[in-house]
Amino acid sequence: MELVCIGNELLIGKIANTNAQWLAKRIMSLGLQVTRITVVGDNVQEIAAALRESLRRGPTFIITTGGLGPTFDDKTLEGVAAALNLDLDEDKEALKMIVERYKRYVAEGRMEKFELTPHRLKMARLPKGARPIYNPVGTAPGVLVEDEGTRLIMLPGVPQEMKAIFDESVAPLVRGVAGDLTFYEASIEVRGVPESELAPVIENVMHDNPYTYIKSHPKVSEQTPYLELHLSTTSKDANLARQSVTKTLAQISEIIQNKGGKIRPVEA
Amino acid sequence: MELVCIGNELLIGKIANTNAQWLAKRIMSLGLQVTRITVVGDNVQEIAAALRESLRRGPTFIITTGGLGPTFDDKTLEGVAAALNLDLDEDKEALKMIVERYKRYVAEGRMEKFELTPHRLKMARLPKGARPIYNPVGTAPGVLVEDEGTRLIMLPGVPQEMKAIFDESVAPLVRGVAGDLTFYEASIEVRGVPESELAPVIENVMHDNPYTYIKSHPKVSEQTPYLELHLSTTSKDANLARQSVTKTLAQISEIIQNKGGKIRPVEA
Repeated sequence: MELVCIGNELLIGKIANTNAQWLAKRIMSLGLQVTRITVVGDNVQEIAAALRESLRRGPTFIITTGGLGPTFDDKTLEGVAAALNLDLDEDKEALKMIVERYKRYVAEGRMEKFELTPHRLKMARLPKGARPIYNPVGTAPGVLVEDEGTRLIMLPGVPQEMKAIFDESVAPLVRGVAGDLTFYEASIEVRGVPESELAPVIENVMHDNPYTYIKSHPKVSEQTPYLELHLSTTSKDANLARQSVTKTLAQISEIIQNKGGKIRPVEA
Repeated sequence: MELVCIGNELLIGKIANTNAQWLAKRIMSLGLQVTRITVVGDNVQEIAAALRESLRRGPTFIITTGGLGPTFDDKTLEGVAAALNLDLDEDKEALKMIVERYKRYVAEGRMEKFELTPHRLKMARLPKGARPIYNPVGTAPGVLVEDEGTRLIMLPGVPQEMKAIFDESVAPLVRGVAGDLTFYEASIEVRGVPESELAPVIENVMHDNPYTYIKSHPKVSEQTPYLELHLSTTSKDANLARQSVTKTLAQISEIIQNKGGKIRPVEA
């Protein structure tokens, strides 16, 4: 599974890529893994290039965020069409979704009147063979198109819309591929043992517990360095996943305390 | 300029990529642009592949974050070596930096004693021809290596260390390439005009003001949708940059207010 996040605002540091973080976390909890995140600007060639490279690696899913709206620099669907050598075509279902949404805005008094301008029509122009995904909270539908075993799913950049479409329509597809895999994680804070001293300990404990992955994150709080150890695993059996992490956590905690280190659990 | 951010914690959504945001913002303010951000996990082949792809696009700089520490999954320098077909070799200057840092920790009572373990030595093993960059606040030095006109700069993932090395040693290099370019930006909040209605306005105003870039960001606050318009420009003349954005802002603000919209300045 790969993410391609589209938007100049990400490349100028106007915002942090919290969409990628949210998606990665959600996808992980559903049992699949994100293997790469690519961020490109609002440029058809850049979007198409990033998608082509991603498609070449053959992931089960590519999820894009951003660039589905009505403005001239919303270029994601053009980029998808270019990457897949497809034309853009007005999609009846997408158009219906968009018109109904605007009519509701008028009914709710959020807009005075509705006209089907070229900028609004643009959101219904999908790559041929693609289908729209209902957006329960905004105007631009999500889009799904398949290419040689990879499902490309385009989501809007507005976090509320991206999350709503993902939870309603994309999560079931991910779950269908992941099966019953579950992800389990736990973190502890370690003080009093430097990372370089803990490095060989982590290797030994991971060798004893091959299903649990341990990663150390050096941190600083009030000028004092400390470590966060993150333990995680994925398993078809939720109990087994929890047991595997718990056992590993107990083992490494004991070693750290024997070295004079102090540990404290961290909320996920 | 491209960023390659390394770390499983980014791919599982444990943290947002705030390092990329900070770097992008800083680089922009120095007058260069980030054109792509790639995130990969702690895997030599993945790191090498991402770097090779980036090198093929020929940016002036590639900055990596993460994976320089002492643990087994700190694999950035191995990835760089693989991408550039270089061997890893113990670097005397890097080793000196690392030893001095640990000795200071001992002197400050933050460590009991210092031994040069293989895990600590690892941070001094650089790709051949690379040179270490002094880390004023942590153990692992940054690393600089050149490849056919691209400068690869490897920074640690700990934000405090990454920022300190960037400001002290990398910013001057970026400024050297960017010259006196400055970036100027302003944002306003727009309520009462839907994005699809503003889309053609933005296009017209940008046509009249070719040096200012305008991007609209749909937002939601307390269930009410609104827009943030972000105006930005880059120029050798700081006054001209400010004037260009200010003039464009005045023009679009007037049109929005004539359409019955309400505007409000937003802090950058």
